[in-house]
Amino acid sequence: MKKEIIARIEAVRAELKKAGVAATMFPQTDPHQSEYLSRHFQVRRYLSGFTGSAGTLVVTSGDALLWTDSRYFIQAADQLEGTGIKLMKEGLPATPGIADWLIGNLVRGSVVAIDGWTSSVTETESLRRKLEENGLSLKVDFDITDTVWPDRPALPGDPIFIHDIKYAGRDAADKIGDILQNASAEGGDAVFISALDEIAWALNIRSRDVSCNPVATAFLYLSAKGSTLFTLESKVDDKVRDYLAERGVTVAPYSSVADFLTNVDGHVVYDAARTSGAAAACLGDRGIACRRSPVAMLKGIKNEVQIAGTREAMIKDGCALVGAFHEIERLVNAGERLTETGVAEILTRYRSQQPLYFDESFETIAGYGAHGAIVHYSATPESDVEIYANNLLLVDSGAQYLDGTTDITRTVSMGNTTDEQRRDFTLVMKGHIALASAVFPDGTRGDQLDALARQFLWKEGLSYLHGTGHGVGHFLNVHEGPQSIRLNHVPTPLTPGMITSDEPGLYRENVHGIRCENLVLTVRAFTTEFGTFNRFETLTLFPFDLKLFDTSIMTADEIEWVNSYHAMVRETLTPRLTPELAEWLAEKTMAL
Amino acid sequence: MKKEIIARIEAVRAELKKAGVAATMFPQTDPHQSEYLSRHFQVRRYLSGFTGSAGTLVVTSGDALLWTDSRYFIQAADQLEGTGIKLMKEGLPATPGIADWLIGNLVRGSVVAIDGWTSSVTETESLRRKLEENGLSLKVDFDITDTVWPDRPALPGDPIFIHDIKYAGRDAADKIGDILQNASAEGGDAVFISALDEIAWALNIRSRDVSCNPVATAFLYLSAKGSTLFTLESKVDDKVRDYLAERGVTVAPYSSVADFLTNVDGHVVYDAARTSGAAAACLGDRGIACRRSPVAMLKGIKNEVQIAGTREAMIKDGCALVGAFHEIERLVNAGERLTETGVAEILTRYRSQQPLYFDESFETIAGYGAHGAIVHYSATPESDVEIYANNLLLVDSGAQYLDGTTDITRTVSMGNTTDEQRRDFTLVMKGHIALASAVFPDGTRGDQLDALARQFLWKEGLSYLHGTGHGVGHFLNVHEGPQSIRLNHVPTPLTPGMITSDEPGLYRENVHGIRCENLVLTVRAFTTEFGTFNRFETLTLFPFDLKLFDTSIMTADEIEWVNSYHAMVRETLTPRLTPELAEWLAEKTMAL
Repeated sequence: MKKEIIARIEAVRAELKKAGVAATMFPQTDPHQSEYLSRHFQVRRYLSGFTGSAGTLVVTSGDALLWTDSRYFIQAADQLEGTGIKLMKEGLPATPGIADWLIGNLVRGSVVAIDGWTSSVTETESLRRKLEENGLSLKVDFDITDTVWPDRPALPGDPIFIHDIKYAGRDAADKIGDILQNASAEGGDAVFISALDEIAWALNIRSRDVSCNPVATAFLYLSAKGSTLFTLESKVDDKVRDYLAERGVTVAPYSSVADFLTNVDGHVVYDAARTSGAAAACLGDRGIACRRSPVAMLKGIKNEVQIAGTREAMIKDGCALVGAFHEIERLVNAGERLTETGVAEILTRYRSQQPLYFDESFETIAGYGAHGAIVHYSATPESDVEIYANNLLLVDSGAQYLDGTTDITRTVSMGNTTDEQRRDFTLVMKGHIALASAVFPDGTRGDQLDALARQFLWKEGLSYLHGTGHGVGHFLNVHEGPQSIRLNHVPTPLTPGMITSDEPGLYRENVHGIRCENLVLTVRAFTTEFGTFNRFETLTLFPFDLKLFDTSIMTADEIEWVNSYHAMVRETLTPRLTPELAEWLAEKTMAL
Repeated sequence: MKKEIIARIEAVRAELKKAGVAATMFPQTDPHQSEYLSRHFQVRRYLSGFTGSAGTLVVTSGDALLWTDSRYFIQAADQLEGTGIKLMKEGLPATPGIADWLIGNLVRGSVVAIDGWTSSVTETESLRRKLEENGLSLKVDFDITDTVWPDRPALPGDPIFIHDIKYAGRDAADKIGDILQNASAEGGDAVFISALDEIAWALNIRSRDVSCNPVATAFLYLSAKGSTLFTLESKVDDKVRDYLAERGVTVAPYSSVADFLTNVDGHVVYDAARTSGAAAACLGDRGIACRRSPVAMLKGIKNEVQIAGTREAMIKDGCALVGAFHEIERLVNAGERLTETGVAEILTRYRSQQPLYFDESFETIAGYGAHGAIVHYSATPESDVEIYANNLLLVDSGAQYLDGTTDITRTVSMGNTTDEQRRDFTLVMKGHIALASAVFPDGTRGDQLDALARQFLWKEGLSYLHGTGHGVGHFLNVHEGPQSIRLNHVPTPLTPGMITSDEPGLYRENVHGIRCENLVLTVRAFTTEFGTFNRFETLTLFPFDLKLFDTSIMTADEIEWVNSYHAMVRETLTPRLTPELAEWLAEKTMAL
C-alpha cells in the first residue's frame, strides 16, 4: 500500500508539471460540500491512504502534506507512515494553516490550482485573497481526479425513493414554498441548493449514495416558475418522477448543472458556505451569496410528526441496545472471544431487527482501553483487539430508521473499576447532566452553554477538544447544523424543535477514553415576567453504567437526575422487552 | 423644565427646516466615542432632559423620540413625560431600530443629517448603507449644537498631569513603541487615537475633564517620526510639555486635528469602532480601519505594578467601606434619618480620607427597596427616600485612587429578612461564586462563561438583562474593553492580567433589586497535559451580607467559598482597622 500511495502522489506531480502548477490540494469534500462522501468523491482517501473523515492533502513538486484535526492525529500518523506524506496537526500553535504554508514554501509568482467544485465560495475567496496578497495566484479549474485515479468508481446509481409524509410530516410542496419565502427575504426569486441533506429534506427523497447518510447525489434549483433536480437520471423511476412533477420539479442530468446555472434567468440565492465556487461562478451576477442557508433552520426545527417518530426510534434503539449490551456482557463474562469489530456487529444485528431500520447512522466506534482515547477510532482488522473485563469500552453508534436517526455513546466496564476510571467518568457525567438539565432564555446559543458541560473537567485541568453537541437530522445525516454546542461562536440559537447531542468526553492517551452521549430535544420550559425559557428533554433511552459513578463527588441533584433518567428508561423500554432482558435492565437502572 | 425642552426641540426643528433636512440625531457620545461625557458634549441631555448614560435623540419636523435601553426605561419615561419626546424601548421586539424607524417614517428622497464627529466609522457606514438602500440619504456635516445650545459650556480646561510611573508601571515611550508595533502588523506606520482612556493610558497622563473618568479631552497621533497630542493648549503646563517632548510628543490645538489629518503623510491605523466617521474621512485613503483597537489589549492586560497598586487600592477601599457601612448601620439602627443620597455622601467621605484618593469612579448607585430594581438608579432630590431596616439596600460604588480603580456592589439588609429576599440573594450569589471560582482554558471568552453566573436564576425563570462583567481600567474608566462577560459574542479572551467585574443581579420591579459585584483578576491556574488553564482571583475586599444567605440551597463548596472569602477579607483588612471596626468586621465575616 505504501508504494501505491507513493506512485499516486507521483501521478499528481506529473499533472502539476504538465499544467505548470506549483501546488494543488484535495480536501475531504465533494461538489456538495459533504462531510461524508460517496466512493466516487473519496479522492483524498485514494491518494493518501488516510481514511479519516476530515483532512486535506496538499501536493507540490517536492512535498506532500496532510492537514487533519486532533481526532485523527494518532490514526493519520499511523496510516501515513512510509508514504512520504507529512502529517500537519491542525490546531497546534506550531502548525501553519494551508495558505500560510503555501505562502511560506512557494516562490512568488507560483500558481496554486484547485478543483473549484470541491471548494465552497467562502473558502475559495478566502484562499484567493490570502494567496494574492502574497504574490501567488489561484487557478480554480484544475480537475485531475479522473486522470490520477484510473479505476475511479462511478457516481452512485442507487435508486431514489420517497420518504413518506407519515414520517416526514410536511409535504415537499410546502417546504419548497417555505424555502422560496426565505429566498425572497434575501432578494432572490430562486434558490440553488448543493447540500445533499438539504435536498433530501426539501423534497422528502432519500437514497443510499453515501454510507450511513441516506442522501442522493444531486443539485436542486427551486423557483416558483418551476424547479429542477440534477441527478443521474437512472436513479429516478417513474413513480418518483411523477411525485416530483406533481410538486413542480423536473429531473435533469447531473452533468447539466453548470450549463443550466450559466443560462438561467433571475436572482438565485445560495449558501456561500455550502455552494462551490465553481457553481457560484456559473451564476455570476445573478447569484446572491447568503451567509445563512435558506434551508438549514427550516430543516433543523423538527415538526411534531418527526419528533413523535424520533421518540419511537429511540424506544426501538434502546431495546436493540439492551439486547446488544446484554449479549456483549454475557460473552465477556463467559470469557468468550469478543473483539471491537464483534461489538459493532452485535449492535448492527440487534438494530437491524427493529421495524423501519434502514442503516447505521455512522460507522460504529467501539474502542477498548487505549483505543477509546482515539476520538474517532474505527477498528480495522489490524487494530482490532479483544474486550476484557478490566478496562473501559467506549461505544459510539447509531442507526437510521425511517422514523428517526439515533446517535448514542456509552462507556462501560465489564469488570472491577478503578478510582481513576470512576472519577474521570463521573466528571464527564457531571458535565453531561449540567447541560442536559440547563434552562435558558429563548435566543441562547450553544457556545453560551458549552462551558456547563466542561466546567468540572476544567477545574481538574482536564478537557476534550471536540464539540459538546451537534445537530442531528431526521432520517438524515447524523451531523447537521445550523445549531451546535461548542467552544467556537455559533450564531444560531438552540430553538424548540431542534435535536442536538450532549456528549462531553475525556481521553487519556494510552489509558482510556470516556464519552457520555444522549440526544436532547429543545422544548419550551416556561414563560415568566423575565421572558420565555427553554430546556432540553432527553430523547435517548439507555442506562449509563452504574458501576462507573463516584457518588462522593456528585450533588444530590446530580444523583437524582441519574435515578430519574434511569427510571424513565426502565419504564419506557420494559413493556417491549423479554422478561430476561427486562430483568437485566432493572438491574442496570437501580437507583444510585 | 418641560417647557424649556419643548423649546429646545423646536430650535432643532428650525435648523432642520433651514437646512432642508428631514431628521437628525443626537447620540450619547462625543468625538471620542466616549461613554461618559464632559459637560461640553452633553447635547442629548441638554436637548431632551433625559440624564441617563445611554440614549439617542431623533428629531424630525413632526416627531421627537429617544431610544434607550432597559436600564433606563423607568427613569426615561419619568424624565420625558410632558416633553413631547416619545420613549423608544431598545431591545423589545416591538421597538424598531433608529434606521428602520427613519426608513418607515420619512418619505423617499429625504435627507438624514448628523454630526460626523459623534458617529463612529462603523456606525456611520452601517447607517448610510441602510438609509441608501431605502431611498434616503445621509449628510454627515450637520453640527448645529452651538446654535441650538446658546449657553453651551466650553471645552473642559482642567490641567493635564502626569500619572507617575511608580503607579503606571511602564513608561509612555515604551507604550508608544508597543502601539506602533501593533499598527505595523496592520500595515500602518502611524496610529490615530480618539478614545480618551486609550490616550491617557498611552501617555500616562490624566485630567478631570469627565466626571469620574480621569481623562483629558484630546486626540493623539503616534508615529516613529514624531507624535502629536491635540488638546486645549491651556491644559498643558511646561512640566507636562517637557515630559511629552521627551517622548517625542508635541502639543497642538484641539481644533487643528482635522487639518492635520487631512494633510498628514503615511498609512494611519485607527480603530473603526472608536474613531469618528469625520476623522476617518479626513484621512481618506491614507487611513487603515481596524476592527480591533491597537491599544485596547495592551491597556487591558495590567502589568505587575498596576496589579500591586490595585491590590493596595482594594485594601484602602475595603477599609473605607467598613467605616461607611458601620456608620450606615448605626444610623439606621438608631432610627436616625438617612436617605439614599446620604449613603452616597458617607461612602465618599470615608473613601476620600484614604491615601491617593482622587475621585469616585462613577456616580454612586444607592437604591433602597424598589429603587434597587432600577438598574442604573441615581437618587435625585425628588426621588431620594429614607433607608429603613425592612427592605434591601443596593449600593454600587467605586473610587479612583492613583494606584487603582475600584467598583463594588453590595446588597444589604439592616433588619429582618424575608424568604424571598434570601432566596433571590442566594441565587444571585450562587452565580457570582460559580463565575468567581471557574477554571478555564487559555483562550476562553467571556460569553462562554456568562451562563455560569446566570444558570441558577434561569432555572427559576429569573434573569437580568445587563452584562455579567466589564473590564475595569487602572486609575482610568471604570468601564473598559476589550474583554467582557455577557450574553453577546465578544471575541477577546479573558487573558491573565485583565481585571473584570463579576456582577450578576436580579431586579423585581417595585419590590427590590439585588446585585453582587466583585472585581476579579485573571491569573494562570496551572498547565497540564490538556493545556494551560486560567482562573480568577478576587481583588475586592468587603463582606457580603451574611443575613441574606439561604444555606439550604447552597452546596458545601459554595458555603466554603463564602467562608474562605470572608476569612481573607478579615485577615487582610483587620490590621488597618480600629478595634471597634475590626470587631464589626469580625461579626460580618463569621463562618456561615
